[in-house]
Amino acid sequence: MFRILGIDPGLRCTGYGVIETDGHRHRYIASGQIRPPKGSMASRLGHLHRELGGQLEVHQPHCVSIETSFVALNSGIALKLGQARGALISACALCDLEVHEYSPRAMKRSITGLGQAEKDQVNFMVQLLLNLSAPPQADEADALGLALCHAHNQGTSLQELVS
Amino acid sequence: MFRILGIDPGLRCTGYGVIETDGHRHRYIASGQIRPPKGSMASRLGHLHRELGGQLEVHQPHCVSIETSFVALNSGIALKLGQARGALISACALCDLEVHEYSPRAMKRSITGLGQAEKDQVNFMVQLLLNLSAPPQADEADALGLALCHAHNQGTSLQELVS
Repeated sequence: MFRILGIDPGLRCTGYGVIETDGHRHRYIASGQIRPPKGSMASRLGHLHRELGGQLEVHQPHCVSIETSFVALNSGIALKLGQARGALISACALCDLEVHEYSPRAMKRSITGLGQAEKDQVNFMVQLLLNLSAPPQADEADALGLALCHAHNQGTSLQELVS
Repeated sequence: MFRILGIDPGLRCTGYGVIETDGHRHRYIASGQIRPPKGSMASRLGHLHRELGGQLEVHQPHCVSIETSFVALNSGIALKLGQARGALISACALCDLEVHEYSPRAMKRSITGLGQAEKDQVNFMVQLLLNLSAPPQADEADALGLALCHAHNQGTSLQELVS
């Protein structure tokens, strides 16, 4: 089985979600949130980097799927979000992991069939696809959705990798 | 003596410069550039993070001084620069270093007396202040300038720290 870790990046709250997949059947492994305590920008970025590194060590994914950012945001917000992404992506790179990027729209379309799907629809489909007993928390749902999106996208080639 | 590492962040080329200071007299220790090889965004961010971590280990600075970014840039550029900064700042945070930020204008004013100084003026003053036999390369000059800027800014309190 192929293991994917999805990341919904954010400076205040980063969601992550781990699934196993053969390209068609998917299994939930873990999900959670990283919430840096209040402090300097450096301490918050260090927290994101360190905590994600810890999850990568625990779950040993084969690759990572991360949400691309709205570049239409104003540049101040883009800079802050970029910093959070840089702290997270560099943690993946230290583990020699490939990092795949998907827009929120691509993820929603892959999970629900609709690029404009509401949060609730994404949560519902993530719960259904992973056979969860309760809907996941929003940031975790997006992170699991990104992992599922990569699994769908790589369907056939994943089957070759795991066979 | 108090040791400061200055960083001029960039995805293609990050300059760094290390000085020792008692708040008034400054000594050049080292400077250089980190140029990630072509590759994925993740591999380049990983390279920045890892190489800066290596320099921090070698030079053991007491704190870091980094250039803030022009938030007037368009958001696509801000996002990319933010990612480079996130990879670099998280490396500093892993070493429990305080990271101080100065705008290009504040650095130029601190070094040359003029917030609008030209590159050549900054290079000349960095060479003079650090008693260098030749002008430093541009990215390294800015990084050394940021370290000097923090030294000037903290003048009195640095004297207390090193006495």
